[in-house]
Amino acid sequence: MSPRKIIIDTDPGQDDAVAILLALSSPEDIDVLGITAVAGNVPLPLTQKNARIVCELAGRTEMKVFAGCDRPLGRDLVTAEHVHGKTGLDGPNLPDPVMPLQDQHAVDYIIDTLRAEPAGTVTLCPLGPLTNIAMAFEKAPDIMDRVQEIVLMGGGYFEGGNITPAAEFNIYVDPQAAHIVFKSGVPIVVMPLDVTHKALVTKSRNDAFRAIGSDVGIAVAQMTDFFERFDKEKYGSEGAPLHDPCVTAYLIRPDLFKGRYINVEIETHSELTMGMTVADWWGVTDRPANALFIGDIDADGFFQLLTVRLARL
Amino acid sequence: MSPRKIIIDTDPGQDDAVAILLALSSPEDIDVLGITAVAGNVPLPLTQKNARIVCELAGRTEMKVFAGCDRPLGRDLVTAEHVHGKTGLDGPNLPDPVMPLQDQHAVDYIIDTLRAEPAGTVTLCPLGPLTNIAMAFEKAPDIMDRVQEIVLMGGGYFEGGNITPAAEFNIYVDPQAAHIVFKSGVPIVVMPLDVTHKALVTKSRNDAFRAIGSDVGIAVAQMTDFFERFDKEKYGSEGAPLHDPCVTAYLIRPDLFKGRYINVEIETHSELTMGMTVADWWGVTDRPANALFIGDIDADGFFQLLTVRLARL
Amino acid sequence: MSPRKIIIDTDPGQDDAVAILLALSSPEDIDVLGITAVAGNVPLPLTQKNARIVCELAGRTEMKVFAGCDRPLGRDLVTAEHVHGKTGLDGPNLPDPVMPLQDQHAVDYIIDTLRAEPAGTVTLCPLGPLTNIAMAFEKAPDIMDRVQEIVLMGGGYFEGGNITPAAEFNIYVDPQAAHIVFKSGVPIVVMPLDVTHKALVTKSRNDAFRAIGSDVGIAVAQMTDFFERFDKEKYGSEGAPLHDPCVTAYLIRPDLFKGRYINVEIETHSELTMGMTVADWWGVTDRPANALFIGDIDADGFFQLLTVRLARL
Amino acid sequence: MSPRKIIIDTDPGQDDAVAILLALSSPEDIDVLGITAVAGNVPLPLTQKNARIVCELAGRTEMKVFAGCDRPLGRDLVTAEHVHGKTGLDGPNLPDPVMPLQDQHAVDYIIDTLRAEPAGTVTLCPLGPLTNIAMAFEKAPDIMDRVQEIVLMGGGYFEGGNITPAAEFNIYVDPQAAHIVFKSGVPIVVMPLDVTHKALVTKSRNDAFRAIGSDVGIAVAQMTDFFERFDKEKYGSEGAPLHDPCVTAYLIRPDLFKGRYINVEIETHSELTMGMTVADWWGVTDRPANALFIGDIDADGFFQLLTVRLARL
Repeated sequence: MSPRKIIIDTDPGQDDAVAILLALSSPEDIDVLGITAVAGNVPLPLTQKNARIVCELAGRTEMKVFAGCDRPLGRDLVTAEHVHGKTGLDGPNLPDPVMPLQDQHAVDYIIDTLRAEPAGTVTLCPLGPLTNIAMAFEKAPDIMDRVQEIVLMGGGYFEGGNITPAAEFNIYVDPQAAHIVFKSGVPIVVMPLDVTHKALVTKSRNDAFRAIGSDVGIAVAQMTDFFERFDKEKYGSEGAPLHDPCVTAYLIRPDLFKGRYINVEIETHSELTMGMTVADWWGVTDRPANALFIGDIDADGFFQLLTVRLARL
Repeated sequence: MSPRKIIIDTDPGQDDAVAILLALSSPEDIDVLGITAVAGNVPLPLTQKNARIVCELAGRTEMKVFAGCDRPLGRDLVTAEHVHGKTGLDGPNLPDPVMPLQDQHAVDYIIDTLRAEPAGTVTLCPLGPLTNIAMAFEKAPDIMDRVQEIVLMGGGYFEGGNITPAAEFNIYVDPQAAHIVFKSGVPIVVMPLDVTHKALVTKSRNDAFRAIGSDVGIAVAQMTDFFERFDKEKYGSEGAPLHDPCVTAYLIRPDLFKGRYINVEIETHSELTMGMTVADWWGVTDRPANALFIGDIDADGFFQLLTVRLARL
Repeated sequence: MSPRKIIIDTDPGQDDAVAILLALSSPEDIDVLGITAVAGNVPLPLTQKNARIVCELAGRTEMKVFAGCDRPLGRDLVTAEHVHGKTGLDGPNLPDPVMPLQDQHAVDYIIDTLRAEPAGTVTLCPLGPLTNIAMAFEKAPDIMDRVQEIVLMGGGYFEGGNITPAAEFNIYVDPQAAHIVFKSGVPIVVMPLDVTHKALVTKSRNDAFRAIGSDVGIAVAQMTDFFERFDKEKYGSEGAPLHDPCVTAYLIRPDLFKGRYINVEIETHSELTMGMTVADWWGVTDRPANALFIGDIDADGFFQLLTVRLARL
Repeated sequence: MSPRKIIIDTDPGQDDAVAILLALSSPEDIDVLGITAVAGNVPLPLTQKNARIVCELAGRTEMKVFAGCDRPLGRDLVTAEHVHGKTGLDGPNLPDPVMPLQDQHAVDYIIDTLRAEPAGTVTLCPLGPLTNIAMAFEKAPDIMDRVQEIVLMGGGYFEGGNITPAAEFNIYVDPQAAHIVFKSGVPIVVMPLDVTHKALVTKSRNDAFRAIGSDVGIAVAQMTDFFERFDKEKYGSEGAPLHDPCVTAYLIRPDLFKGRYINVEIETHSELTMGMTVADWWGVTDRPANALFIGDIDADGFFQLLTVRLARL
């Protein structure tokens, strides 16, 4: 089987970085056509820069990186420097990127790529707010039928939210965009907090990253060190959840994940619950299924995969 | 210590029945001043009748039972015959009650009792929608300062909802009433699905009820047999969650329960998430705490307590 | 025809006072069974006191005045001292009342009266927030079938709102109560801002009140003088709208008013438009009609009626 | 003074057609840079075609017409064939257009034009749902500072709505887009139903169009004949309101219009009032002004202008 062609839509973020590195390390499974940046964890000027920093860390200076939307649809941008630090990639000391940002707008790159590639062969991997994806669907509705699948990190059901009691950050930042994506009819795989909170970077797992010894291994260990301070304090857990790499790991080893094909609606009407992913896990409504909502992960297998693959870079 | 004086506000329901029986079995801990019925699991004519059936089963024909509101505030009544059966007490064959229904309206009984008893000595134990309680607070705001505590079954956070993906039945049926109660300033202890779904009647636990051999023991076993069909099918769990008895067990053995004192807001604006208890478990907002939200239970201790106490009746 | 038996539910308020005086002046048309006070323009301790002040001004010290709810359903009380002054009856210097406040709660008085009088013979005349009425309907749903009609002041469509751009004060203060009343199925006549803004107390009309020369006439003129300062400043109109007297005038001379029998829904979900009376004046929905929504008035006839009748007191 | 450069964003619609014709007839006042079509009164394939039909009717086959978004942001498209007929231009028999549709997407044309022209020299004239404009602002936020003014038809306050009791069609179809535009900070002039319902095509005014005798004059008369059937039936008015031409007339003769500079918010949370333009006409909130909300028109002057100018074509 040939590798899956993907576009990574991202707002790095340390865990976005690891997700990207995993994808770039696995050419036999994943063909990264391009990377599109969106405002989210930090503002757009930082996320597009961080995307390039990560590509250079992986030695992939030829990768095409595009800047997209710098704000959500109709709401003020909320960012998460309290988690990711001022740069979004706090932790390691990584050099400013030399590789250029592409001129084209991320939304147009997504549209053009989906039109250029054979229908049903490109997967979208959103790791941040869904603004760019929703804008592309709205501007060019014809591309919706051409997407193979959307595999995204966002939402939560049994874990509740993180940025508010009801909402996870990525969906909360742009609930309207999420609403557009979830009602698009495109096949969706969701990595919610329910699963990512089971992918914790314990000390031994982070030691394994560090033990790789390469620039990438050390940088990943340093990013995770920084990242986990927040979660350890908040949740008292043994380590930070590695949210976004679940997306790219799923493309390589879907067998590591378990979920249910259910209806997921996005709350867009009430401020109290704004951005909640209302997931009908128990089938109590008659709303039609529109997403594979992942709930479980083989965490050991996941971290083994990560360690082995990152060691290649 | 003298027993706690309580009013049980209820919509029986098999699990309400067990909660009432536990209270009536424990005079050294609980002094049941009266029982008020509300529409919920089944319509009011059945819940007030069922409350009397349960009193007679316990041999307490002198207990005062009052009928309250037959519909929620501004919404149509939703009932749960799919869980509790047509009568609300499906399972055992219990005779129609002979003891009378009191003439006074439940709302006025609650008000008068709180005014008659010394301030801070009466606890309200709502096991159904909060309509009666909210109406009493609205009609006679002076009583709010006189309530010792409200210990209620309702809501859910990590377990999500049951009647909708976001909302638990009791709160969903009358979100406005819940909103009034949760913002009343009265001390509140909440038994949400998070804890009641850990209080499962396994086969061996139900066998223990049956082994009591008394009318009460056998009726409880039969009620639970009926009740659990629904949950086993839906959740694939080993038994039915015994929701409401958590409330009365908490009055006897609070040490069996663990929770957090947090902010809980009720969703009243959006149909999609209507009636959700938005519980700030992780302290991500600066909203002030207003409820002790229970999350864990010593289930073995709980069922042992239940079995021992029910055996007295 | 025998006079219509009514209960006036009110939060005086200068215009409430005039509405009450008109009713009390017209025994051949209106039989005021009792007056129930509610929190609204000013807090409940003032509205119940003001109701008694007005009765004494009319020489009707035997009138039964009841205090009801001191806050809306689930929302904080909003008052309108910026319109009515600190006392709610600013303007004239009226003595403190000597007549007693009844012991019974207004909600129970409404319920008992509707049950005691023959079905279909009692009209409710709410001049303030609908809290008392909704509470009575909720506590005793059987009375809804016994109400002859509700004639209320509240809402607005073509005139928009006054306390917010979308909502009129009475409905805004307790939208949930209004929602309960408008979906009760009881026949409703609405006097919205659309009509009351056409009942302006011009200088000549107020001079006519003063020219009555009696205590009542002078007090009404002084109240209106005070009241109109607000509206003249805000609207640049020639005088204050005499909102609430439209209700009691309608009972005497319905021919002075014109409206449409249409659907009216109350906004209860969005803060921006909270309490709006969404009136389907043009019939663009298929929602069933539930209210006679008045839009026009013979203002000269109205003020002539007022002057003639007030002169009797 | 040089003519104002404008982009007309439109969903023709008979009244859109008249607005475009007025603009094209007045080169000394208005320089139409391009016309962008959006889904609204009828679906996009018809609105872009109708825009070209109107250009050809005016003899302006060189005009650039662009197709934009075919659906609103996150909602299903609602259309208004019950008003405009199946084609959107029912009434006259106009030939299919020969002039081409431009390849570029309307959103990109708007962005490129605003970037190419000197800042502050281009006015946007939306006559339909605000989807294209919101998308352009979202994709290229830098252009917001470059817009001279937005003069749009949409909303209503004292007139309420038309497609629902609370909402006017253009805003209702895409409330999220309207929300984005109204909070953009760009200077906005709004032509709501409040003013357009005062611009009625009476028989004598339509006779004046027909008396022009030209193809344009006759077509306009026929379009208005068709259009007015709906409004006459619904409102019982003397003729159809000529909504959209108020926008282009304002550019030529702003002195014909009067309004207030006030705050206007868009309802996006509640289905009941969805898309309402909550206009703070009376200044009862402290929300900052963001739009000149027009309330009055010199209707005779307006129709005189229209007749004189249309006669040129």
